[in-house]
Amino acid sequence: MTDILADPLRPHEEAVTLPESFDAGIWFVGRIRTPWTRREECPKRGDAEAGPLCRIEIAEPWVPALAGIERHQTLQVLYWMHLSRRDAVRQNPHFDDASTGTFALRSPLRPNPIASSLVRLIGVEGAVLTVRGLDCIDGTPLIDLKPEFGALWCDTSPPMR
Amino acid sequence: MTDILADPLRPHEEAVTLPESFDAGIWFVGRIRTPWTRREECPKRGDAEAGPLCRIEIAEPWVPALAGIERHQTLQVLYWMHLSRRDAVRQNPHFDDASTGTFALRSPLRPNPIASSLVRLIGVEGAVLTVRGLDCIDGTPLIDLKPEFGALWCDTSPPMR
Repeated sequence: MTDILADPLRPHEEAVTLPESFDAGIWFVGRIRTPWTRREECPKRGDAEAGPLCRIEIAEPWVPALAGIERHQTLQVLYWMHLSRRDAVRQNPHFDDASTGTFALRSPLRPNPIASSLVRLIGVEGAVLTVRGLDCIDGTPLIDLKPEFGALWCDTSPPMR
Repeated sequence: MTDILADPLRPHEEAVTLPESFDAGIWFVGRIRTPWTRREECPKRGDAEAGPLCRIEIAEPWVPALAGIERHQTLQVLYWMHLSRRDAVRQNPHFDDASTGTFALRSPLRPNPIASSLVRLIGVEGAVLTVRGLDCIDGTPLIDLKPEFGALWCDTSPPMR
């Protein structure tokens, strides 16, 4: 389920024993296609203005749910960070002498590894959207798309782990 | 699992047959306490400035993941809209003569009923956060918390279903 070996704990990091059963289930509603095939290549955060074109491929039976999406310039994309370990509660993103709680970080390592990105919608053709602003590895499972009405483009975020 | 009877389809709405098995599992990491005990009472969107104080109660074993969260003024809250049917792909939010795809709406009815809200953090005491800006029913399951660095407060969103 989770590729824990890919994320060895760093000094001061802390992991917990995971619950034995899930509380709810998710369906992957599509796949994200990006230029990045290894996690180390992924940008820390997508650039919805200057980032590369990426594709979001919607799977059946969800394609009809795209109707009207072309009217929106900005979309919120929820995706599943399928390569992240889920048991880390304290993390050390900067390899220093301290750690920070997972809920105080946007690290991909989290109990429910759901990422939220804001992207610019460039085009729609059938079941495929073209967007700018993603930052995930090629093949990442898609969970949801929502129109975003907030003022994204005055964002001044610092870089993140 | 899903209280479909609570959301009868409206004219022009369309539902699909749901997949038989899930692709991933979610753990509820806490509970949200709000003043609203019925869905009809919930605001269309939370108000992080003037909305009522709400509580986010983190469950074990995730409480250590709060370390450092008090340094953030704005949090992104992901929660599970446990009362929403999940099979609607076209919806008619305004009861008119047309329908719109689910991915072009922020309606709570979606394949994976995950909501994303931006809230103002007012205080932290042990495993409990006090925030403003939520819009969900009392007892809603919490999925994730992340610090939000974007420019939330220039938001000029229209009201939504």
